[in-house]
Amino acid sequence: MIRVTVWNEYWHEKSEEKIAKVYPKGIHGAIADFLGKNEDITVRTATLDDENCGITDELLENTDVMIWWGHLKHGDVPDEIAIKVKEAVLRGMGIIFLHSAHHSKPFKLLMGTTCNLGWRESDDKERLWILDHNHPIMKGIEGRYFELEAEETYTEPFGIPDPDKLLLIGWYNGGEVFRSGCCYHRENGKIFYFQPGHESYPTFYNENVQKIITNAVRWACPDYRIDKLECPWVARIEEK
Amino acid sequence: MIRVTVWNEYWHEKSEEKIAKVYPKGIHGAIADFLGKNEDITVRTATLDDENCGITDELLENTDVMIWWGHLKHGDVPDEIAIKVKEAVLRGMGIIFLHSAHHSKPFKLLMGTTCNLGWRESDDKERLWILDHNHPIMKGIEGRYFELEAEETYTEPFGIPDPDKLLLIGWYNGGEVFRSGCCYHRENGKIFYFQPGHESYPTFYNENVQKIITNAVRWACPDYRIDKLECPWVARIEEK
Amino acid sequence: MIRVTVWNEYWHEKSEEKIAKVYPKGIHGAIADFLGKNEDITVRTATLDDENCGITDELLENTDVMIWWGHLKHGDVPDEIAIKVKEAVLRGMGIIFLHSAHHSKPFKLLMGTTCNLGWRESDDKERLWILDHNHPIMKGIEGRYFELEAEETYTEPFGIPDPDKLLLIGWYNGGEVFRSGCCYHRENGKIFYFQPGHESYPTFYNENVQKIITNAVRWACPDYRIDKLECPWVARIEEK
Amino acid sequence: MIRVTVWNEYWHEKSEEKIAKVYPKGIHGAIADFLGKNEDITVRTATLDDENCGITDELLENTDVMIWWGHLKHGDVPDEIAIKVKEAVLRGMGIIFLHSAHHSKPFKLLMGTTCNLGWRESDDKERLWILDHNHPIMKGIEGRYFELEAEETYTEPFGIPDPDKLLLIGWYNGGEVFRSGCCYHRENGKIFYFQPGHESYPTFYNENVQKIITNAVRWACPDYRIDKLECPWVARIEEK
Repeated sequence: MIRVTVWNEYWHEKSEEKIAKVYPKGIHGAIADFLGKNEDITVRTATLDDENCGITDELLENTDVMIWWGHLKHGDVPDEIAIKVKEAVLRGMGIIFLHSAHHSKPFKLLMGTTCNLGWRESDDKERLWILDHNHPIMKGIEGRYFELEAEETYTEPFGIPDPDKLLLIGWYNGGEVFRSGCCYHRENGKIFYFQPGHESYPTFYNENVQKIITNAVRWACPDYRIDKLECPWVARIEEK
Repeated sequence: MIRVTVWNEYWHEKSEEKIAKVYPKGIHGAIADFLGKNEDITVRTATLDDENCGITDELLENTDVMIWWGHLKHGDVPDEIAIKVKEAVLRGMGIIFLHSAHHSKPFKLLMGTTCNLGWRESDDKERLWILDHNHPIMKGIEGRYFELEAEETYTEPFGIPDPDKLLLIGWYNGGEVFRSGCCYHRENGKIFYFQPGHESYPTFYNENVQKIITNAVRWACPDYRIDKLECPWVARIEEK
Repeated sequence: MIRVTVWNEYWHEKSEEKIAKVYPKGIHGAIADFLGKNEDITVRTATLDDENCGITDELLENTDVMIWWGHLKHGDVPDEIAIKVKEAVLRGMGIIFLHSAHHSKPFKLLMGTTCNLGWRESDDKERLWILDHNHPIMKGIEGRYFELEAEETYTEPFGIPDPDKLLLIGWYNGGEVFRSGCCYHRENGKIFYFQPGHESYPTFYNENVQKIITNAVRWACPDYRIDKLECPWVARIEEK
Repeated sequence: MIRVTVWNEYWHEKSEEKIAKVYPKGIHGAIADFLGKNEDITVRTATLDDENCGITDELLENTDVMIWWGHLKHGDVPDEIAIKVKEAVLRGMGIIFLHSAHHSKPFKLLMGTTCNLGWRESDDKERLWILDHNHPIMKGIEGRYFELEAEETYTEPFGIPDPDKLLLIGWYNGGEVFRSGCCYHRENGKIFYFQPGHESYPTFYNENVQKIITNAVRWACPDYRIDKLECPWVARIEEK
């Protein structure tokens, strides 16, 4: 059983009627709904307004893969929580950062860069091109590309380390491109950044988006975790 | 003219007679000496005990490549200084981290990982194997490998992101291996991690070590720098 | 069910008594034995002396992952067979190249390089260091390293493209290092190069070696295959 | 002095009046013209109709960087010539493959893949997005992107190994994206694939295209070359 925790800032959906209509259960609720249909996945959710942002040591130890959505309230996540999440990843927990989570504290800490990009909300159509159909995260995605009728436009240069594996490039009819699906290994943890998912669009109901997130959960789920991050003194192996 | 700043913790050399004998001018002095012999390089130095650790905005703006050596006093570098150095790199400044600087604040911030490793001081011999002789950082290094009669042993697993280019693997007669020369691009800045250089050994007088550091300075020197890190709103390029 | 074909040159075992004692059923037989114990894997074998080297279009279409061992008789594999294997990989078949298969025709065709290395048979001990314990190919391998009492020594520089993921570095007590576990994605196919496995040593009975090969079979097994390699004319998607 | 050889199929320009008007001296002539203006570069040219395709051992030994343009006549380059070029690269010669040279024999041999892509001639506009402004090949290219008023459309999936460094992504107003600037290290040689340059468009007169090709020549120029590709027996370094 893969134990997933979906973390959501959950601000737009509570404060903007238009967004609440798109995601009445919150973005976390929408993601939990489709993930929970899989027999090998069990889901819980946590949000910014929960005590301690809903993130405790116990939660992290019992989460195989975390999913993170945030946008306007990145700064409200305390540094010590962000560091806890980062360290859980380095010990082996998988994590998937969605859309505007490119600027979340845990993502920026793990990447070591600004994760800056260019952006614009203009209802551009996005076409996502698949670079490697045989990667586990692309399982079941048909065709050379798939489309989203409208998304927030994100554009290069995207201030990230070059991905260990680039899976998707987004084309926007407004004229931009973006590295939209990026895999990273960081110590014992696997990280996937996936660009779609602006709060005002029904992106998380899209079948291909759901498949990719579900596949990414399985890909990021750890076989191996360590308890403690340490820099050990080691004895000599070979006799002098 | 490439403007280099060599930053050194400069603690061992001042507090331990044995180390002072190896590096009477400090490790920074030894590095400045061989770099300064190159007509295209001008060097200044800064140390932990200088005001503000010797690091100011003015210095960073006028440094093309920084070299960093630290060991026991990483924690004495204030976080805001470490962040300044990190951001200077992301804007374009090159940086070379030497030996125990794997645990320096700027390196850990830029890597996003613990940069942990296994270690031991047992006078092991190290043999550094060259993976790509035609990389600019290996220019002039002859043979399949070169040797250091004694070095601190560092061993895998080394908690770093996979290098964008791995140039050297260290073999130790005590039984270990280590990724000893690692290149990274991070936004506009180039980073080189180079493992040799324990304070108690005359490593920085070794001809191959000097060549590699000199080559790395030229490789990391920026052609392009930006003034400000930002995440801009962008206008639509294509007419709807 | 993962359909594996183990291909072996099968020359040493038939012509040298000493080798026959180590691998009485041939190296392919030894590999088939341990792989066949897995409920999700079914194995067949093919050897150089079989008609057509034992490799037909039908076989390739019905093989999910091929394992390749060859040494002295690389040249006896016809070019057209080697090309067939290469193209099957590019269409999606997984492949694992063992030890001296670094110089097999299919490996060299897929890498595009000489795949040269330095070598010596001197009963060196090898210690294989694990760079990423949470990669699927390392599942179940405990500790920072594992050892082989004796192996043929292979050494850098190894004339391969930088691996998409480097998993293992070999240390030899004779003084060398080697990139011993290398993952590649090539179009639709996954490739793993694994260095251990000289014919005169009982390497393929080693528990860790068996685990790694078994894990690599599962990793390389395709989710996606294409029938035909083509460079298609494509219609315009967007209206002018 | 960097010794460049520009190789061109030189068929379109001789047989199609329309193309001859765009490139009256041939594509090789246009490239030689702008490269030859640099004081550190000396250029010669060779074409398919020259004896031996214009490629001899002497030429390869005296070429630091080769530039390759071909399209309809890839098959007319003899295999043994293609292999000579490939081996010169593996020994250290730099090479730049332009546009439809993605299907040239030397490029396919070096990549080990089909190098297939989707394509269409429909006068699409291309916008090339720059991923890393501080790479030596991007020196002097201003802005987030540059444009070509019309180019042949090339589209993903592009059947290449993942580049060691991806520098450019092309956006086409017809709806496609393409990895348009790809760096590779292959043994001792550096390779750059650059997508623009269809014969019917004045692409090679574009200032940014000229800058990138000139920069790539300097980047690919070797510091190190070997005479012979070999897989040597090596003596034991450490005493038993």
